[in-house]
Amino acid sequence: MANEVYDLVVIGGGPAGYAAAIRAGQLGKKVACIEVERAGGTCLNWGCIPSKALLKAAETYEAIQHAGDFGVEVKDVKVDFAKVMARSRTVSDKMAGGIEFLFKKNKVEYLLGTGHISVPGIVEITSGPDKGKFLSAKKTLIATGCRSRRIPGLEVDGERVMTSREALVMKKQPKSIAIIGAGAIGVEFAYFLNTLGTETHLIEMLDRVVPVEDPDISQALNRSFKKQGIKINAGTKVENIEVGKKSVKMELVKGEKRTPLEVDTVLLSIGVVANTEGLLSDKVKPQFDDKGYLVVNDRYETSLKNVYAAGDIIGPPWLAHVATYEAVQAVNGMFGHSEPKRVTLFPGCTYCHPQIASVGITEEKAKADGLDFNIGKFPFSASGKAVAVNKPEGFVKLVLDAKHGEILGAHIIGNDATELITEYVLAMKSEITADEIHATIHAHPTMSEALAEAAASAHNEAIHI
Amino acid sequence: MANEVYDLVVIGGGPAGYAAAIRAGQLGKKVACIEVERAGGTCLNWGCIPSKALLKAAETYEAIQHAGDFGVEVKDVKVDFAKVMARSRTVSDKMAGGIEFLFKKNKVEYLLGTGHISVPGIVEITSGPDKGKFLSAKKTLIATGCRSRRIPGLEVDGERVMTSREALVMKKQPKSIAIIGAGAIGVEFAYFLNTLGTETHLIEMLDRVVPVEDPDISQALNRSFKKQGIKINAGTKVENIEVGKKSVKMELVKGEKRTPLEVDTVLLSIGVVANTEGLLSDKVKPQFDDKGYLVVNDRYETSLKNVYAAGDIIGPPWLAHVATYEAVQAVNGMFGHSEPKRVTLFPGCTYCHPQIASVGITEEKAKADGLDFNIGKFPFSASGKAVAVNKPEGFVKLVLDAKHGEILGAHIIGNDATELITEYVLAMKSEITADEIHATIHAHPTMSEALAEAAASAHNEAIHI
Repeated sequence: MANEVYDLVVIGGGPAGYAAAIRAGQLGKKVACIEVERAGGTCLNWGCIPSKALLKAAETYEAIQHAGDFGVEVKDVKVDFAKVMARSRTVSDKMAGGIEFLFKKNKVEYLLGTGHISVPGIVEITSGPDKGKFLSAKKTLIATGCRSRRIPGLEVDGERVMTSREALVMKKQPKSIAIIGAGAIGVEFAYFLNTLGTETHLIEMLDRVVPVEDPDISQALNRSFKKQGIKINAGTKVENIEVGKKSVKMELVKGEKRTPLEVDTVLLSIGVVANTEGLLSDKVKPQFDDKGYLVVNDRYETSLKNVYAAGDIIGPPWLAHVATYEAVQAVNGMFGHSEPKRVTLFPGCTYCHPQIASVGITEEKAKADGLDFNIGKFPFSASGKAVAVNKPEGFVKLVLDAKHGEILGAHIIGNDATELITEYVLAMKSEITADEIHATIHAHPTMSEALAEAAASAHNEAIHI
Repeated sequence: MANEVYDLVVIGGGPAGYAAAIRAGQLGKKVACIEVERAGGTCLNWGCIPSKALLKAAETYEAIQHAGDFGVEVKDVKVDFAKVMARSRTVSDKMAGGIEFLFKKNKVEYLLGTGHISVPGIVEITSGPDKGKFLSAKKTLIATGCRSRRIPGLEVDGERVMTSREALVMKKQPKSIAIIGAGAIGVEFAYFLNTLGTETHLIEMLDRVVPVEDPDISQALNRSFKKQGIKINAGTKVENIEVGKKSVKMELVKGEKRTPLEVDTVLLSIGVVANTEGLLSDKVKPQFDDKGYLVVNDRYETSLKNVYAAGDIIGPPWLAHVATYEAVQAVNGMFGHSEPKRVTLFPGCTYCHPQIASVGITEEKAKADGLDFNIGKFPFSASGKAVAVNKPEGFVKLVLDAKHGEILGAHIIGNDATELITEYVLAMKSEITADEIHATIHAHPTMSEALAEAAASAHNEAIHI
């Protein structure tokens, strides 16, 4: 039987779940958060955070290789791959510990195991250290997230075949790798491994790398990755994967052409699927969409009263920052703090080098929708800061409403892109026009000047091009 | 006699002058730009740009020293100081060449020499390759800028005694240096030289480093600089400077206490003075203020009709981005393109490490003005991105109007601060409140999340602290 009555029981301790639990704690609610593994969830333990630590190691190695350009002479540099991986785990541990600290601070009861909704209002813990506990929940938030999609019949053994999760704890650096899927995760691992010297094959079924981005961005990344030595196969399927003891063989199929490929290891980065195993008893049947995601209303409530959901489990865009936002909105709404808002606008970031960041629609989409639009564009090669720090690669591209100059989409590739995008997100959110961005003084010399120059360029008023 | 009639003659080719000339060219005007040295002026040739190249070299060296933390092992690293300096000159040359290209593209006539206003409407070139030319100008823009202030009686020889200009072409790295003045230029050189191994004494007359910044920022920089090994003397005057053949001796005076100091070299970074030498004939007497800056009205026109001025020559804040803005506004106004605006809001950036960026008022000023305000604050140690990239130092601090949450001031110290500030500048310019920033989704994991968390923290709604 349920011993305690909680205002909120959160199932899942990732960016949606932990944020929801902390927010409920801030609101003075009695709240428990059930996590199957470790606070922080995939993002913090198996995604965003440890991957950024790895990428920083690769960036550091790359910076050293180019240090001579700056007059810093380095003779003997080598990568201790085990140490690279170990630091990344240390960072995750530290951040997970931080979440656990925040749970305590905000009086969130942190429980370990699989959360299972027996009936709406009762959550049982069915595995793990807290197995056997029943929690009575006035409200429940499902935030179980997603996990990497696999290829049916292809066993993920963590050595020859990995998803990003196994790749984050690789025991040794592969000599060669086939990365299947050139979305954000695929290109980040491609940059990381290629930079450290792995022969890297990046394979994408669609016709270009980072296919959700503006085609100009894909083209620029393609060019840069080729220069870096990454072997790119777009418009290519992988068939007949054969996992051997020492290698993996496969066929790359592009139209009629079949090319054999043999590599040490395969990384699958082909999207995600919802985590629902063990979540619901037979009696609990919230509505799912046809892709397996929970359907929620504008208050993030599922078809079951007082059962809410937020984050990856309610479907794309599968981004940590979107998950956190949804979760906080859901909690604010369920306890009457403020009217919850659904997500309409969010940035997407990819942390390979050059970095990619975008918000809103692509030029392609603006065309397809028959919109009347202008393009603003500014290359970093014309930025004093970019040249001074030896990062002249990339550009800023704006898709602007032709009539009012409203920003419809913004696309950045280059150094610091993932930090720069924030100004455009705020602008779009607040309906600030390109002219108003141009009229705002941007510090010199910064990469951010390119944001104002791109805005100005739509009226041919950019000074530096 | 004047042979040609120009719509606009610009005197000075720095960030105000070259931008004005290019903008006038964009508007189809016949325009000449007279520069005494090289296109780009101080900023591009002797300031912002070459100093950023030097700082990047120091950052690279510093990154290498900490590369082991990431698992990148470096054994033999040394700095080729001459090459460090040479690259910085190459960057300046390249960017100056870029401005010269933009002059051609925009049909700006580029003339080399000292511009001298003989009478309003006639500009003579009194030195340099174009000496002897007379230009008839419908409108004239004075954009001669400023140069480093010196200490009367102390000769700047470029070896024992330097200003930033000489420091940018140092022939060899000094073993020790006394940097007099801990404003932006002083602390940037302190970071640069100290990182590369120079024994660095940073001396400031006022009671703290970067005294224009919020006191919390000064305190954080002070702590960081001390940790880096920089010897800081605030509240300290320098007296009895004696320049010898191999060293410079001086006394540091703090209250009653006098401490002798002997160093290789002295760098003066004690502010600037206006460049007016040779600018005006006896017949041309525009109004100057009591500090030697030209007085302009809201259209950037001096007390003389059709003689305008913009940039450092019209006084503080002596920032390149402010100069460019003023110049473009002046040109837009003089040719009826749009009503010119005066500068009300601008960011200030300092590129030492940790970086500093700010906009608006300090907490100190808010108190002094008796404002009803709240403070929002978020430390980078609680940012996943900052921890992942090993840059957890610093914080974001907001001074917020208590009633509406309007941003009165924003102060950032830490990695990427100079890029991050741009979002707050746009917010202040567009009267976006802290709540609206908090309601805007910031990408995870980025340093920019701290901007939203600082905004949220004012209402105790930050998730990660």
